[in-house]
Amino acid sequence: MTNIKEIKSAHKRLKGFVRETPILNSPFLDEIAGRKVFVKAECLQHTGSFKFRGGWSAISAIKHDERNNGVLAISSGNHAQGVAYAAKSFGIKAVIIMPEDAPTLKIDNTRKMGAEVILYDRLREDREAIGLKVSKERGLTQIKPYDEPLVIAGQGTCGLEIAIQSKMLNISEADVIVCCGGGGLTSGIALALESEAPKLKVRTAEPEKFNDVALSLENGKITRNNSLTGSICDAILTPEPGKLTFPIMNRLCGSGLTVSDDECLNAMYLAFLRLKLVLEPGGAAALAAALFRSDQIKGDSVLVVATGGNVDTKVFSQAIKNYM
Amino acid sequence: MTNIKEIKSAHKRLKGFVRETPILNSPFLDEIAGRKVFVKAECLQHTGSFKFRGGWSAISAIKHDERNNGVLAISSGNHAQGVAYAAKSFGIKAVIIMPEDAPTLKIDNTRKMGAEVILYDRLREDREAIGLKVSKERGLTQIKPYDEPLVIAGQGTCGLEIAIQSKMLNISEADVIVCCGGGGLTSGIALALESEAPKLKVRTAEPEKFNDVALSLENGKITRNNSLTGSICDAILTPEPGKLTFPIMNRLCGSGLTVSDDECLNAMYLAFLRLKLVLEPGGAAALAAALFRSDQIKGDSVLVVATGGNVDTKVFSQAIKNYM
Repeated sequence: MTNIKEIKSAHKRLKGFVRETPILNSPFLDEIAGRKVFVKAECLQHTGSFKFRGGWSAISAIKHDERNNGVLAISSGNHAQGVAYAAKSFGIKAVIIMPEDAPTLKIDNTRKMGAEVILYDRLREDREAIGLKVSKERGLTQIKPYDEPLVIAGQGTCGLEIAIQSKMLNISEADVIVCCGGGGLTSGIALALESEAPKLKVRTAEPEKFNDVALSLENGKITRNNSLTGSICDAILTPEPGKLTFPIMNRLCGSGLTVSDDECLNAMYLAFLRLKLVLEPGGAAALAAALFRSDQIKGDSVLVVATGGNVDTKVFSQAIKNYM
Repeated sequence: MTNIKEIKSAHKRLKGFVRETPILNSPFLDEIAGRKVFVKAECLQHTGSFKFRGGWSAISAIKHDERNNGVLAISSGNHAQGVAYAAKSFGIKAVIIMPEDAPTLKIDNTRKMGAEVILYDRLREDREAIGLKVSKERGLTQIKPYDEPLVIAGQGTCGLEIAIQSKMLNISEADVIVCCGGGGLTSGIALALESEAPKLKVRTAEPEKFNDVALSLENGKITRNNSLTGSICDAILTPEPGKLTFPIMNRLCGSGLTVSDDECLNAMYLAFLRLKLVLEPGGAAALAAALFRSDQIKGDSVLVVATGGNVDTKVFSQAIKNYM
């Protein structure tokens, strides 16, 4: 089980490699939310999302000999880029398993980061089986996206930064809303804040129909989504919370918040206009919750984690056109 | 004449009020430029541009009694917002003189920041005369946009941050390219780096036909642009460098760089895609120079100051559509 000691150890390993992302605010956002809104801009992290933290944390903890064999990840999204870039900075090989219908740009970007991409047929092949086979054959260490203690510890370093930065901003008590997929970042931040800033309470933000964490927290047990497709928030669509992450969230998090895809697009526009930040839909869910679910939030201040900015240009262009 | 002592004094006054903006980078930008590109993201400063530094620096230095009477600025752009927001944070009145044909959004934003906006007719009225009259009548202190020692000192704090951050990033020798209008930021940064990091050499970036600073540096004397309209880089269009800023730039800066409007739009797209930053055309000129004038730059690294992000939504949307 990940604990604060492991997060602090990851924090030491990451020092000088990870970016300490800024916390931004705007009086215009405060006006909409009816309270002060602080935005932790993890979209400015290396590779455009917080995933670099977990990838780097995991790779940096592998024993030297094993690490030199390389790593493997199964992902078509932010985890792929986080692991590929972290591996590159260690000078080791990364193999990324991606569906062959993933956007060309994402495949190209992952390759440009020096990773070998193995494509699979989403309908006919089992990606987990491919991952296992390739890992074994080549002696690669597989880096899971969230249900992995070292990854949770890496994401938790974002929480350590929040604890320090919130003191400097005089935020003593507030909800900390985190865009949530499998729960790696949410559980990591929750553990960090439990130890370092216990009056900051973590809550999740998820899109409608994919609020498995909110439902699981409500039911007190892992609860699966009915749908598996149908939201633009691709970065945070998971069928259910992780087996390692859920017990942590269940113990430490407040009730989950749910927002619509349109509210995420609106939050993207407002982040563009007021903060000069580029967010992807899934990375804007927490800001959307702070702005448009203010009746479900208490206190003078709210802090949100804007988790990523790897958005398709067309989607972004549409978002800012719709709301301008 | 502004000197390093005044910049350090401004830095002390601004502590806790100004944002220390991050320096970002991306391997994809390095590849285009053929060297490491570091981007100081001043678009993330309060009000979306570096202008807050100078505004706050000037207001914080006014004697208490005088300050309470309020301040005045003549600007339709970033200086207006910087001064208005700085005045608001001091709880004092700001009067901003804007042309009546300025975009409604800019007028509204300035008002929402608590400023009183006085509109004038660009063709029939003299804004300087209005500014003088209103200042006198109401006892307001006028804050000039660049030819004012306290403003130059405030902008220079950006240079102090660059000196510290570049050491942490192991950048020992590099060109520092600054998007340049009247030269307040450029001369402030040049003074700060002369003292704190003399191997970082400041150079200006300007749009074609508005490269008055590049021409002035070449001629060794203040040289005026032939054109006064016709570029999308509205934030940095000035007829000629300032009387106070030019001697500093002439003593400390390398040759000026000139880029096209299209190159600025392309740089905006790349900042969107690779850094998750929103830049305005004038705020992207330095990045455009680093990416597309690499033959005129030496060394393994280049640092650019992305000065602002207050871009019209339509212009931004067009930029990312054109280049995606």
